[in-house]
Amino acid sequence: MTPDIDTNRRKRTAFFVSDGTGLTVEAIGHSLLAQFRGQSVEQVTLPYIDSDTKVTQVLRRIEAAAEESGLQPIIISSIVSDQIRRQLHQCSALMLDVFESYLAPLANLFGTDPAHTVGISHGIANDQRYSERIDAVHFAMDNDDGRRTREFERADVILVGVSRSGKTPTCLYLALQFGLRAANYPITEEDMDSTALPKILRPFQHKLFGLTIDPKRLMSIRQERRANSRYASPEQCEFEVRQVEQMLRRAQIPSLDATELSIEELATRLMSQAGIERKIS
Amino acid sequence: MTPDIDTNRRKRTAFFVSDGTGLTVEAIGHSLLAQFRGQSVEQVTLPYIDSDTKVTQVLRRIEAAAEESGLQPIIISSIVSDQIRRQLHQCSALMLDVFESYLAPLANLFGTDPAHTVGISHGIANDQRYSERIDAVHFAMDNDDGRRTREFERADVILVGVSRSGKTPTCLYLALQFGLRAANYPITEEDMDSTALPKILRPFQHKLFGLTIDPKRLMSIRQERRANSRYASPEQCEFEVRQVEQMLRRAQIPSLDATELSIEELATRLMSQAGIERKIS
Repeated sequence: MTPDIDTNRRKRTAFFVSDGTGLTVEAIGHSLLAQFRGQSVEQVTLPYIDSDTKVTQVLRRIEAAAEESGLQPIIISSIVSDQIRRQLHQCSALMLDVFESYLAPLANLFGTDPAHTVGISHGIANDQRYSERIDAVHFAMDNDDGRRTREFERADVILVGVSRSGKTPTCLYLALQFGLRAANYPITEEDMDSTALPKILRPFQHKLFGLTIDPKRLMSIRQERRANSRYASPEQCEFEVRQVEQMLRRAQIPSLDATELSIEELATRLMSQAGIERKIS
Repeated sequence: MTPDIDTNRRKRTAFFVSDGTGLTVEAIGHSLLAQFRGQSVEQVTLPYIDSDTKVTQVLRRIEAAAEESGLQPIIISSIVSDQIRRQLHQCSALMLDVFESYLAPLANLFGTDPAHTVGISHGIANDQRYSERIDAVHFAMDNDDGRRTREFERADVILVGVSRSGKTPTCLYLALQFGLRAANYPITEEDMDSTALPKILRPFQHKLFGLTIDPKRLMSIRQERRANSRYASPEQCEFEVRQVEQMLRRAQIPSLDATELSIEELATRLMSQAGIERKIS
């Protein structure tokens, strides 16, 4: 037996089980397991577990993982139904369920029983929320990369920065998650003759937010896109970043360094820093 | 005193407190509170609570909410630091903390202490994950709305449906959340002379996924966009939806009814139904 196979066999499995999309338990699972980095844990998300048949399949899969690895599996779950939770408890896994832990204290506080209704949290909720969100997404698409500037008037925020500093995904995330109308405008070489803000941006100075990035990181991102180009050269990346940083400082535009931040972090930090309130919750 | 002011004063507050982005606790909070629909609860997310100064501000805000409403506040939190959790416990709120509840049983299972490192879950994680994700986002942008079809070869999935059935936001979500390269192609009137698949799509039949929608819902979405147009008329919406449904049936393309589903639900259900695996986790 090779050591490689042996390692695989001894891998513990964590199941993220939900009667809805599974997105929430997955996020909880990731945060918790991130605290035990040394452990090698296979992670499996099982969404929409909302019937006896599906529970039976899940139980079989969990027991198979237990047997194969010889290690107790983990279930991190959000299951509204008491009955399905009871069924899951029959297996040998360590089970941590959000509803099980927190519904009782909340019911006690409110002095009322929970509704036991499945899948409310990621449901379509209401028409108004839906259309705010969709509008924001289309706004972000239409106003990406300086493609259109005549709608800057309607924007909640306008991201500025060099090409590939993370503006586009951040705008899309702000739209999808928070219903914000986020436009972005790339500062290109043409704008860099001076460190004054490009004319087109000046009327919207109060809505601008800058993304900066470490030139080395920028170079590596650009290399993947256009290897060995001038665009991806160390000199060019260095020059563009320095110019934009000066521009932001001079115009006193708030900014974030995107080098080490994920899209979620950029979006949420930007909102706290600029004091921008979400449109949907 | 008007009844309106009185109601406002008696509103309980739930604080979603995190040392990171707050996205996970917010999601947990929404699912839990959705089980108590009758209760009027003001929801406040407080991200990046990672220092004594910030904790002090939070405590002050919580006590103010308690005093103003006369109702015990709720804290739903994910705080890695034992010390910050202890400080939060000093206030009068009911506190439910994910790390407090689940780190101990996990540490016990693993036989090792947790790392107590903040903000790992939504961090940039690694370069490869980051670039997969960004590539997928740019792919979705470039291949939106049939804008480009020469990249369909590289797509993980191609969404088809009538205009405004939810294809664009679903593609973007698939890209951002799961790193999938999702393209979309709108079935327009020109494609509806027959119920055969448009020629351009035929080589990619195995990658197609349909979105259908209730014609009344479609009408209301299109009305908001172009009120009283032919595009938003009941007849046109009805006709387009029926034609596309026949097309999908005839070519045996799997599909989902987008009418009552959120973007998260569409994305996750589509993946389970089509057996598409995520590219990033």
